[in-house]
Amino acid sequence: MDLRLSARGEEFRDSLLDFLDVHVYPNEARYAAEIEASGERHHHPAVLRELQDEARRRGLWNLFLPDPEHGAGLSNLDYAYLAELTGRSPLIAPEALNCNAPDTGNMEVLHLFGTPEQQQQWLHPLLEAEIRSAFFMTEPDVASSDARNIRSRIERDGDEYVLNGRKWWSTGAASPRCRVGIFMGVTDPDEQPYRQQSMILVPMDTPGIEIVRELPVFGHYDGHGGHPELRFTDVRVPAGNLIGQEGDGFRIAQERLGPGRIHHCMRLIGMAERAFDLMCERAVARETFGKHLARQGIVQHWIAQSRVRIEQARLLTLEAAALMDTVGNKGARMEISAIKIVAPQMAEWVLDKAIQVHGGAGFSNDTPLAMMWAHARTLRMADGPDEVHEMALARRELKRYLPQ
Amino acid sequence: MDLRLSARGEEFRDSLLDFLDVHVYPNEARYAAEIEASGERHHHPAVLRELQDEARRRGLWNLFLPDPEHGAGLSNLDYAYLAELTGRSPLIAPEALNCNAPDTGNMEVLHLFGTPEQQQQWLHPLLEAEIRSAFFMTEPDVASSDARNIRSRIERDGDEYVLNGRKWWSTGAASPRCRVGIFMGVTDPDEQPYRQQSMILVPMDTPGIEIVRELPVFGHYDGHGGHPELRFTDVRVPAGNLIGQEGDGFRIAQERLGPGRIHHCMRLIGMAERAFDLMCERAVARETFGKHLARQGIVQHWIAQSRVRIEQARLLTLEAAALMDTVGNKGARMEISAIKIVAPQMAEWVLDKAIQVHGGAGFSNDTPLAMMWAHARTLRMADGPDEVHEMALARRELKRYLPQ
Amino acid sequence: MDLRLSARGEEFRDSLLDFLDVHVYPNEARYAAEIEASGERHHHPAVLRELQDEARRRGLWNLFLPDPEHGAGLSNLDYAYLAELTGRSPLIAPEALNCNAPDTGNMEVLHLFGTPEQQQQWLHPLLEAEIRSAFFMTEPDVASSDARNIRSRIERDGDEYVLNGRKWWSTGAASPRCRVGIFMGVTDPDEQPYRQQSMILVPMDTPGIEIVRELPVFGHYDGHGGHPELRFTDVRVPAGNLIGQEGDGFRIAQERLGPGRIHHCMRLIGMAERAFDLMCERAVARETFGKHLARQGIVQHWIAQSRVRIEQARLLTLEAAALMDTVGNKGARMEISAIKIVAPQMAEWVLDKAIQVHGGAGFSNDTPLAMMWAHARTLRMADGPDEVHEMALARRELKRYLPQ
Amino acid sequence: MDLRLSARGEEFRDSLLDFLDVHVYPNEARYAAEIEASGERHHHPAVLRELQDEARRRGLWNLFLPDPEHGAGLSNLDYAYLAELTGRSPLIAPEALNCNAPDTGNMEVLHLFGTPEQQQQWLHPLLEAEIRSAFFMTEPDVASSDARNIRSRIERDGDEYVLNGRKWWSTGAASPRCRVGIFMGVTDPDEQPYRQQSMILVPMDTPGIEIVRELPVFGHYDGHGGHPELRFTDVRVPAGNLIGQEGDGFRIAQERLGPGRIHHCMRLIGMAERAFDLMCERAVARETFGKHLARQGIVQHWIAQSRVRIEQARLLTLEAAALMDTVGNKGARMEISAIKIVAPQMAEWVLDKAIQVHGGAGFSNDTPLAMMWAHARTLRMADGPDEVHEMALARRELKRYLPQ
Repeated sequence: MDLRLSARGEEFRDSLLDFLDVHVYPNEARYAAEIEASGERHHHPAVLRELQDEARRRGLWNLFLPDPEHGAGLSNLDYAYLAELTGRSPLIAPEALNCNAPDTGNMEVLHLFGTPEQQQQWLHPLLEAEIRSAFFMTEPDVASSDARNIRSRIERDGDEYVLNGRKWWSTGAASPRCRVGIFMGVTDPDEQPYRQQSMILVPMDTPGIEIVRELPVFGHYDGHGGHPELRFTDVRVPAGNLIGQEGDGFRIAQERLGPGRIHHCMRLIGMAERAFDLMCERAVARETFGKHLARQGIVQHWIAQSRVRIEQARLLTLEAAALMDTVGNKGARMEISAIKIVAPQMAEWVLDKAIQVHGGAGFSNDTPLAMMWAHARTLRMADGPDEVHEMALARRELKRYLPQ
Repeated sequence: MDLRLSARGEEFRDSLLDFLDVHVYPNEARYAAEIEASGERHHHPAVLRELQDEARRRGLWNLFLPDPEHGAGLSNLDYAYLAELTGRSPLIAPEALNCNAPDTGNMEVLHLFGTPEQQQQWLHPLLEAEIRSAFFMTEPDVASSDARNIRSRIERDGDEYVLNGRKWWSTGAASPRCRVGIFMGVTDPDEQPYRQQSMILVPMDTPGIEIVRELPVFGHYDGHGGHPELRFTDVRVPAGNLIGQEGDGFRIAQERLGPGRIHHCMRLIGMAERAFDLMCERAVARETFGKHLARQGIVQHWIAQSRVRIEQARLLTLEAAALMDTVGNKGARMEISAIKIVAPQMAEWVLDKAIQVHGGAGFSNDTPLAMMWAHARTLRMADGPDEVHEMALARRELKRYLPQ
Repeated sequence: MDLRLSARGEEFRDSLLDFLDVHVYPNEARYAAEIEASGERHHHPAVLRELQDEARRRGLWNLFLPDPEHGAGLSNLDYAYLAELTGRSPLIAPEALNCNAPDTGNMEVLHLFGTPEQQQQWLHPLLEAEIRSAFFMTEPDVASSDARNIRSRIERDGDEYVLNGRKWWSTGAASPRCRVGIFMGVTDPDEQPYRQQSMILVPMDTPGIEIVRELPVFGHYDGHGGHPELRFTDVRVPAGNLIGQEGDGFRIAQERLGPGRIHHCMRLIGMAERAFDLMCERAVARETFGKHLARQGIVQHWIAQSRVRIEQARLLTLEAAALMDTVGNKGARMEISAIKIVAPQMAEWVLDKAIQVHGGAGFSNDTPLAMMWAHARTLRMADGPDEVHEMALARRELKRYLPQ
Repeated sequence: MDLRLSARGEEFRDSLLDFLDVHVYPNEARYAAEIEASGERHHHPAVLRELQDEARRRGLWNLFLPDPEHGAGLSNLDYAYLAELTGRSPLIAPEALNCNAPDTGNMEVLHLFGTPEQQQQWLHPLLEAEIRSAFFMTEPDVASSDARNIRSRIERDGDEYVLNGRKWWSTGAASPRCRVGIFMGVTDPDEQPYRQQSMILVPMDTPGIEIVRELPVFGHYDGHGGHPELRFTDVRVPAGNLIGQEGDGFRIAQERLGPGRIHHCMRLIGMAERAFDLMCERAVARETFGKHLARQGIVQHWIAQSRVRIEQARLLTLEAAALMDTVGNKGARMEISAIKIVAPQMAEWVLDKAIQVHGGAGFSNDTPLAMMWAHARTLRMADGPDEVHEMALARRELKRYLPQ
């Protein structure tokens, strides 16, 4: 595999590195302060709007979308390098570049499967960051890693579909800027298992949608719209809101999740690098028992292991991205599973060690470490738990050894 | 070692098991609801007062204190069995029995080193749960696992001492019921390293004490008084508030930390057992890919490993407790270090697996798992990080092999 | 649990410790030299005969057998303390005390299930260490951890049984002193799965027994009779050689394996302690990069972890042994599975670290570490692989949570 | 990094894959049989000579040497792909291609630092595989991972140097085909630490060289010349045998070890792939408890983890090789340390799981797994233990964070 950044990608990287240094890192404290001052967790602070303006000015915008018309037209490989960098400031940088989950995945779905009307109404404002969106997939009552467990219903009634069900971990849905969601539900329970589900667009101001509560992640109630639980009761949307055909839900979800998974992994590499920086900075600054932490054998062990683990995960991510470019998202499915297994655990490990080096400060919000740790931990579950990806990967490998 | 519960201990255990079943577990939801309703994180809810009354009625009170006059007069071994059980409901049960950190350690200090006046003023109300207390040890600017790093000052000025310094992770100090703290600071910087520090009682309403902020633990802002950071500026207390003599600080801290550490470990065993219950209950209830979680090989692996890890840690805890009974806290120092290394990591591992089995619910507050995980994680640092205990243990072992 | 050694056990321990110091350790080199000089791997050296005489003289003989008539009449708990000590010199001490696998398990079977004639002919000479024995269970072609896979046949023909099949990992069978074996095979393939197998005594000089080859264990061709593969072709033995009834094979195997498993675990604790000694001795003696290994953080980490892991495994072993004494081998089955999961992995870990501290010497035969490592590694498989024990343990635990 | 195989490399790879399929794998059994039949462990069997002829005919010869005149002129990156493949049959393939340690490193030294006379006398016959060679570095009495510990002496006496000392783990030195060795010793103990040592060529038939014994590796006494311990007593060689200048020893060793380390890692990837094959083949073939191993969750976990660990280590190896091509061996030193930390542990892990899946067969010589495991384990020590590489890597990383 040629894992090099393209010449065009290098330009983007240089600009992004500069953007981070000049605009993002120096504004992290201001970002927190503005939200704090607003008294509203999901506040969209002025600093972020400024950063978005600057990013757009630099062309650092919609980098995630390989399509050159709607997005930046970068290869997945090029984007992997850039997305990693945004992971270094995960609360700000991805959104500043309009490359934030779940909007990215939703834009991808609309780009690939949306009708011109759907694109006009929802894709364009999302591409302009005028609105945000949610993805209503996971349900509290079933193991949603198996799509066949989905229980929410989407039932045809004349020119409309009627939505019923409960969804949770609906990232971003509590933001006042979230105007639309993609809802996954069963249209035909008598179809074969993977053709029962459909996806449909549902505007957030439709009657019958209720935010039951917001869910904390290891105690953190995230901003950006959080991760609410919602109840959908007889929510009526026009039939034209259906994405693709009835029964396409599972297929679209698969298409959507591939890039989504690897984008998460890319950013996790960046979070691990940020943790590595913080760990090393602390190790050279802090003294205990008459010796700098940096000179203690166990700390050196952590640092060396962190370096080799990060680097290996990075290479695996780049390889999966390059493969998506050459054989397509479907062809690279196993490689995406591979990095989905590797990256969260790697990041969790590095973050754990960085936290330990920070003592009590590591548990608090004085560093981004605890928050990043919680995020990495959830990614061992979100978009398919490790165990499901391992099972899929193993079965695929074993197939080659079965007697023909 | 005879690791059996005594006959008297068995009576306590039976009563405690009944108390948990009848009074504690059924009130966990009410406890959360009352705090929520109060709008005040550090609210002392009515349900807890009722539970304390019931516990006192049953004699399940001050079980931690081996002294028969002030406490229940139980051996450490007997208490190990009981404290483990309180760990199953860590937010409620320890406080219901007035066996909650940091009050237990502070009562122990006052019991062992307090003057009659100090005991009258502070120990008695603490033993009655009329007030609560804090322990001001850790400082934000230095690695406080090495006591020689302490920078706060306690300076004599006439009949008073003047306290200055910054402290953090001062568990419980933000509660309105917290009326007194034990403050560790340097009285004589020219003394030999372990005789520079002293401990002194400081009433919380003394002028000059300022709560700077409360610290989150992996996002959780705990109730019970939280873990604030405080600034002490020219805080004046009577000279009679000194505990022991000038220079006794380090020695008293050592005495205090021994039992404190093992109490944490006892409760961690109980938290791991609670997690084990929840994991198994979920595994038999939840189905994915057409198979109950309980029938998946990897889940069975987790359950078997959880069982053998918990049981080993329990036995090591009991052994350390029994040793404290026979050779004293100082003689059992290495065994306390041993269990301090083992228990948090064991609990963290079991909790992690229980969380994974719970899917998204595991990250939220719908189960106590995430909160207990955060607690277990902090105990790899609090009261001395793993690495310091490992170093101490290794050095002690190696001493036997040195040429004489 | 009361995990204390009994007063009688203490006498045995004192005598055994003295025996090890005075007779065993100083003769380890002579033992190796005599075998080397004999030119015959399975040579029974004079030194071992002398040690057996001395052990017998001290009453340190057949300690493994709880029966007071045939054996020492010790509880399993007492024996656990003693067997651990023999593990410190695993090539010599167990055999010197006539407490060596597989003879111990075979003696136990004969003791429990043998007819007076069988006991007269085989048990008595085994108890006197006049002969040795083998156990023919595992087969090369099937996963024998599942007894239902056994394919060897035991067919009745008049007054005789005819044995056919292949067996391997038949420890001790290549020794010229091995005179009898217990053979497991199918007597009735139409019976229910766990009643198809029987056990039968087969003298090693019966025609039709062929040692195909000896098997190395990670390169080590063990002495003591090694681990050969054998072919049994129309091997005829008197019908009176059957142990118990037809169909009892599985039940007897279960009875036999319980104690066998825990005896292995007891000795593994001793091997780990020996490795710990060697590791610490080396660490204080060896210098690199201007610093003794004992002062390097990572070595201290290994030493502390070794200590806490050994101690936990020891306590779990003692608890399982004590439970066998109180509720019987069958009642303690899960606890035996637990320690069977824990002890080999613990020993393997400690041995690995001790080897690393020894540099190249650790891989060679200059220390017993490599040999002990290989032994510990095989015990993650022998007598049931870890995975099978974990599955059994998990299922037992989960049963408690199933809806009634 | 561009990690692609070059067009020329692809030709080599196709030829090598064919060579392995047609000539190597089918001859593994014959190779073992011929050595067995010869009764001489270090026998150079006819089959190997035939394979060498065939390899030379195909141009699959001296691939390791980047120099186009003496070797194949491949980049390190191209060679990484090819060396990995030879690791799949580690006893045969590397030697068949004349790419076997320690000859490769010795040829590299002679190529880079040898005089024309030295090259004529020793390099050319080595390049033709007419002779073999040894490297005398490690000493039994000191931690030789720190070159400053070397105690052997090389003393000038007229036109000769006189060598004295003990060396061990001198791979290949017991082969009758081993005709020369490179000896590392102290020429000037008063020089600065890294200029005290020199290297010198010593023909194996020089009086005063004595093979004390051969060392087993976890019980395996390897063929190919084994790993003997030697005593050098007043061994006299012409002064012209010195390589480079007096005091160059450490520098040359550093140059030699870089490629040597990564070659080992390349082959380890291949061994892990071979183990992966064997594990999967066994898993689909073997049934236990009514279920193929391939369908058991824990086996699937191992297979998935093996795949992601192998792939990550491969990418890291390729990256290090590519870096050696672009910034040189010295510039890539940290990357070589990185892969030296990663590859042996990865291979050891995969081999351990493959062994477990094989049951008893995994411990024996029926598969190459046990032998490959032992080899991987020694590489956590050989050419610098993990801990030294981690320390070096950590220090290099930390340097960037030190205050300037």
